[in-house]
Amino acid sequence: MEIIKGGVTAAKGFQAAAAAAHIKYADRTDMALIYSEKPCKTAGTFTTNIVKAAPVKWDRKVVESGVKSQAVIVNSGIANACTGKEGDLICQATASKAAEVLGIGREGVLIGSTGVIGMQIPMERLKSGIEQLALNLGDDSEHGNQAARAIMTTDTVEKEAAVRIEIGGKTVTIGGMAKGSGMIHPNMCTMLAFVTTDAVISKKALRKALSEDVKDTFNMISVDGDTSTNDTLLLLANGMAKNEKIRCGTLEYDQFAAALHYVNETLAKKMAGDGEGATALFEAKITGAATKEQAKLLAKSIVCSNLTKAAVAGHDANWGRILCAMGYSGAEFDPEKVDLYLESQAGRLQLVRDGAAIEYSEEKATEILSQAEVTAIADIKQGTEQAAAWGCDLTHGYIDINADYRS
Amino acid sequence: MEIIKGGVTAAKGFQAAAAAAHIKYADRTDMALIYSEKPCKTAGTFTTNIVKAAPVKWDRKVVESGVKSQAVIVNSGIANACTGKEGDLICQATASKAAEVLGIGREGVLIGSTGVIGMQIPMERLKSGIEQLALNLGDDSEHGNQAARAIMTTDTVEKEAAVRIEIGGKTVTIGGMAKGSGMIHPNMCTMLAFVTTDAVISKKALRKALSEDVKDTFNMISVDGDTSTNDTLLLLANGMAKNEKIRCGTLEYDQFAAALHYVNETLAKKMAGDGEGATALFEAKITGAATKEQAKLLAKSIVCSNLTKAAVAGHDANWGRILCAMGYSGAEFDPEKVDLYLESQAGRLQLVRDGAAIEYSEEKATEILSQAEVTAIADIKQGTEQAAAWGCDLTHGYIDINADYRS
Repeated sequence: MEIIKGGVTAAKGFQAAAAAAHIKYADRTDMALIYSEKPCKTAGTFTTNIVKAAPVKWDRKVVESGVKSQAVIVNSGIANACTGKEGDLICQATASKAAEVLGIGREGVLIGSTGVIGMQIPMERLKSGIEQLALNLGDDSEHGNQAARAIMTTDTVEKEAAVRIEIGGKTVTIGGMAKGSGMIHPNMCTMLAFVTTDAVISKKALRKALSEDVKDTFNMISVDGDTSTNDTLLLLANGMAKNEKIRCGTLEYDQFAAALHYVNETLAKKMAGDGEGATALFEAKITGAATKEQAKLLAKSIVCSNLTKAAVAGHDANWGRILCAMGYSGAEFDPEKVDLYLESQAGRLQLVRDGAAIEYSEEKATEILSQAEVTAIADIKQGTEQAAAWGCDLTHGYIDINADYRS
Repeated sequence: MEIIKGGVTAAKGFQAAAAAAHIKYADRTDMALIYSEKPCKTAGTFTTNIVKAAPVKWDRKVVESGVKSQAVIVNSGIANACTGKEGDLICQATASKAAEVLGIGREGVLIGSTGVIGMQIPMERLKSGIEQLALNLGDDSEHGNQAARAIMTTDTVEKEAAVRIEIGGKTVTIGGMAKGSGMIHPNMCTMLAFVTTDAVISKKALRKALSEDVKDTFNMISVDGDTSTNDTLLLLANGMAKNEKIRCGTLEYDQFAAALHYVNETLAKKMAGDGEGATALFEAKITGAATKEQAKLLAKSIVCSNLTKAAVAGHDANWGRILCAMGYSGAEFDPEKVDLYLESQAGRLQLVRDGAAIEYSEEKATEILSQAEVTAIADIKQGTEQAAAWGCDLTHGYIDINADYRS
């Protein structure tokens, strides 16, 4: 597996574009297009929030219909959620306009929106944005990067990842982009993430690979516990790598799944680390668990704890909050068996043995917690399973951003 | 029902005291004692966190044993949680010392602790604190107030409530005090709350009244989603009102339960409104629900949403976040039927009809959100059930307090 530069345009036959449609932002790009030269098999996972944005309902229908897709239109600034019938009409018009300017079928056009809930997208700006997008298409990494930037809202950096593998003598590439910073507590999938591949793969294998990997990647991050109305993850495969078709239960499937996992995990961690106001990526690892499910519940509970996140922001080794968060996670374990460690590039330090504090250096703990990536490790000494979850610290920046996001 | 001044000393035969034992705080009182002239029947509810502080385990044993209680010893500063065997020994020593200086049975001494997790309580200071407490006892409201102040940690105000009712021609009084500001997301009960009454009541009725009312009061508040290791609610009844014994299923039971509800709800709302860093008490009300359970899930999800709480802090009517929080609550409802209102002493304003925005004045919305008590009301138009939950706004103050709480 070779990690390469790039994002959604890394795989063969995929192009991307950005445009400034002024949907809500005055001075930046706010629309993106992913276009495949050949129609793609598509897999997707979507928010479990009962309040579903119009594009989520649209995409789910497209993916479930089995129609092949050639284009994804994304806008930032307005989420097209809680927008009633008008919101659905905007999706229809978006698909029609994209089909017209790209000369493709309307039924396979996918749509993503992110931004404020409750506002309507100005239709004329959206349409002129789609016209611009079609003119701006390109298949190099620069165009992929422009698309990744156009879908940002409160994100501070664009999020891309790409990887190359050999499958049966053919080079297969997987690349993706994502955005997400606030309202991030994915349940089924995350804010907006788009992954493209040129692999030849059966529809069943494509969907299995995505739905299984999501559980360990996008569903294991949290910024603020708020599961968005717009969570969407799409995986498009155009088959242009010409490898022998990947099917479930084969070595090639495992290779593909491992490569997809790298792209998904990388994008997920980038989202967590760029959480609104965050100064650190905060990872929680549970080891010695009896079951994977137990390890995941415990890890996720730690990265969701406001008190723990605030302690990370303050570089304060307030480990009691970590044990407390484990205790209300819903997972069974013996608190008096827990060993707790902090780890970062500044080193590794044990704080707790068998559920109680041991002598440790507060200065060393603070040094470890002052890094850009910080890990808390809890060994619960019950078995051999483990899991990780990713979040970020809770800072004044989060309040600044969210106390008056709409203005 | 007459609302009266006072707290834990309002009911007949209850005394209270405070003392400065310097357990962790240098310049304030940090221990409290509630003492009843006659032994009390006791009911209690405790944290569901798997990580239970030593005093929680101690109190649960006392309450379950059915032994009558005459004293509650409380300390602030150190929570005696994650303290291993030594933590249990501290509880034993506390009970022994209290029994000795008060001349009561050791088996019925109840204990509450709140503060930092993981540190050990210095035993000699605790013992000398208990000696002081015994000397400082008094039965007036001033002594009750001193006790309510001594148990505060990051609380900014003491929390007391009391009420008087007539039962069968006798005056029955219920009074209580509570503390709680951070790590408040009670599940079974809240941080620390102590309610006393002089009612004559069967043990069964006492426990039923408490356990049923907790579900609608203490379990419906949240400050930060972190369920504490120390949540404890105790209700002591010494029978000194000499009323005919209150039994389940009677009019008198209903009268007692209503009075207890007032005290519990008042204390719970005071805790929510004094959440760490809070500038407003934030209430969420669901009306038109098909079931009470559905209404409670929805209301609680709203007051737990960081994004909604940050919007309240910014006086920003970002109603999409409220609908979003309802959507991931786990309760079924039709988003396209929801009507949403904001209400405070500045007035009432509808923002949403049938799940989409209507024309409304942003200035009026901001005015409503700028008050010290703010309510969001969602009518889901499915039935006649309703519920309320209470939280607070999420501010810079929360970060200030929690990014470096231990120093």
